[in-house]
Amino acid sequence: MTSLARPQTPFAVVDRDRLDRNVARLRTHLARLGVPLRLHVKTSKSIDVAARVFRDAPGPITVSTLAEAEHFAGAGYTDILYAVGLAPDKLDRVVALRRRGVDLTVLIDSPVQAEAVAAASRAAGIRIPALIEIDCDGHRGGLAVTDPGLIGIGRTLRDGGAELRGVLDHAGESYFSATADEQRRDADHERRTVVRAAEALRAAGLPCPVVSVGSTPTAHAATVLHGAALDGVTEVRAGNFVFFDLVMAGIGVCTVEDLALSVVVTVIGHRPDKGWVLTDGGWMATSRDRGTAAQRVDQGYGLVTDLNGRVIPDLLMTGASQEHGTLSLRPGSTAKLPDLPIGTRLRILPNHACATAAQHAQYTVVAGTAGDDGAPRIAGIWPRHNGW
Amino acid sequence: MTSLARPQTPFAVVDRDRLDRNVARLRTHLARLGVPLRLHVKTSKSIDVAARVFRDAPGPITVSTLAEAEHFAGAGYTDILYAVGLAPDKLDRVVALRRRGVDLTVLIDSPVQAEAVAAASRAAGIRIPALIEIDCDGHRGGLAVTDPGLIGIGRTLRDGGAELRGVLDHAGESYFSATADEQRRDADHERRTVVRAAEALRAAGLPCPVVSVGSTPTAHAATVLHGAALDGVTEVRAGNFVFFDLVMAGIGVCTVEDLALSVVVTVIGHRPDKGWVLTDGGWMATSRDRGTAAQRVDQGYGLVTDLNGRVIPDLLMTGASQEHGTLSLRPGSTAKLPDLPIGTRLRILPNHACATAAQHAQYTVVAGTAGDDGAPRIAGIWPRHNGW
Repeated sequence: MTSLARPQTPFAVVDRDRLDRNVARLRTHLARLGVPLRLHVKTSKSIDVAARVFRDAPGPITVSTLAEAEHFAGAGYTDILYAVGLAPDKLDRVVALRRRGVDLTVLIDSPVQAEAVAAASRAAGIRIPALIEIDCDGHRGGLAVTDPGLIGIGRTLRDGGAELRGVLDHAGESYFSATADEQRRDADHERRTVVRAAEALRAAGLPCPVVSVGSTPTAHAATVLHGAALDGVTEVRAGNFVFFDLVMAGIGVCTVEDLALSVVVTVIGHRPDKGWVLTDGGWMATSRDRGTAAQRVDQGYGLVTDLNGRVIPDLLMTGASQEHGTLSLRPGSTAKLPDLPIGTRLRILPNHACATAAQHAQYTVVAGTAGDDGAPRIAGIWPRHNGW
Repeated sequence: MTSLARPQTPFAVVDRDRLDRNVARLRTHLARLGVPLRLHVKTSKSIDVAARVFRDAPGPITVSTLAEAEHFAGAGYTDILYAVGLAPDKLDRVVALRRRGVDLTVLIDSPVQAEAVAAASRAAGIRIPALIEIDCDGHRGGLAVTDPGLIGIGRTLRDGGAELRGVLDHAGESYFSATADEQRRDADHERRTVVRAAEALRAAGLPCPVVSVGSTPTAHAATVLHGAALDGVTEVRAGNFVFFDLVMAGIGVCTVEDLALSVVVTVIGHRPDKGWVLTDGGWMATSRDRGTAAQRVDQGYGLVTDLNGRVIPDLLMTGASQEHGTLSLRPGSTAKLPDLPIGTRLRILPNHACATAAQHAQYTVVAGTAGDDGAPRIAGIWPRHNGW
């Protein structure tokens, strides 16, 4: 298994050099702004990927499931934010993790959840820390910053035996902001909204040590706007940036050359009458995510490259069955369909790295120069940890 | 873990009573037509589900990956068709399976593949059997039945040291046929096309013992039309029918009450300003499949039921992040959004069972009457075997 020409397809590949470059870019940017990164591990779900971000020792992470929290806790990560609104019956696993010495924080946006966290804290004799989710753009959950319930939730936590640790928002709508200017405004709005919530809590005499923002677009866009960069913010969450994807490239947060995740597939047939090349990589390997469908340029199920990662002009994965991919030229293209004999290996650059990675149990890692056979050299296998 | 009220969400559930009913329905139908079923295991990827179809002993199966073939071979399945066009470098695993005593058949539609199968047969001293894929509806791969290359491929197999075992087609377009009449025509066309190919091979002096058709819609629709039911056909492939899904219900192959797969989720928040109920089941739990989007009735990411499986009128899963689901009323509905407090458990009936099942490592199985707490009683856990 020395090069990408060897393992049987389909399989997911991580380009470690690109990953390292993506990590260095955001780390440098945030260091300049003076705000620490809390890595979201939901994209990679990989201890090995996280270790490229935290070279010296485990750092602060965000998780999307308690399974991730448990897995990363086992690898020495002790500062973990579970950033999905809490289902109260998950509190037993939260308590178990805290008893293992993990500083696990939960996320809530309702009095019912605050009472549940407080009750579990009293029952366990542990002050479970919670952030209150604030909505900045109508994307998903969270309280409006003007919601009069905010203070009450904070008091329920503090007075009920839990710990009010702070506030959080997430500019989820920034994934649909197509220009750098819009993304800067999203970042500024995300920051100002959550800082305002923090100030409201503090004005009511409540603590608010953590003020957390983040999304991959706004993390990169955050800059000095309205006289403030990330003033008042204590941490930035981002996860997708380790791999990036076509959705991020489509809104200019990265370029196609930054994409660190791809899927290797093999040509298994041709339909010249239809202009199709068929591969053994279907939606099971790429996911059904069609995130670029809503963008200016629809990339189908993904852009196609050769095995060395060079984009083949105008060739897209345009169709997907469970274990079949259909490649064809972009509608309107004047390019010629290249000759891709049966057995040819190609790579698919995905719309949405989180979704494509989720279809795989591990990453085949490439790094450095090509192997003796001219194909990218395999540097290792990194497992993923799926499930809940 | 005695009822669906216990395991932490999200998780996939199989209703065994519905599964058994779906299996009995197709078995009875095919028995009447006198043609055996070759179960496609790609939907469930579960030995336990297959055992509900083959009660006495392992029967003939279809697989979509060699990982499935290897897994089912380990459970005693010895008659296996790998029904995705063969990538030649997978022949080493094909040979290894045959050496284990598995009668594994591969699928090809090109001279290049035929030569590869013949060469591998000679090298291994084993006649590897292959079916030739015939295209009946332009859905994916396969030769046109009039393709002059058909006979040459057959001869390459037979004369090159492999085994020409027969022909196969798949009416993949029948998933888009919205009426029973259309599906009957699809079934008839699927049958007649592949029988014609078999006759062409036989007329050229070539053997063609296997004539394989199948898709869940056409398997159920096959009936006496043009004076023939499944005359000339030796086996019917189907897989989705074990679970069915909203796409199948949308074209009338089943009803919503037949759906045997669902995902249990928990309410984690509300956005009354938007009419949203938020859950802890996002696309990671349901997949990104939006198969009903192209149907007469778009079901979003799925229909919502209570924990006992009763459909909540007009409530759909309309949005999905990785670990968040958004439920809201069907556009235009005059129903009232029900009161679903935080902590309420619901079930999502999926668009596409194959895709939703693929997001999970196991099924929680319910059967019989409700447990003491009024929630469906858990009868067991059935593992899935994912990967390639």
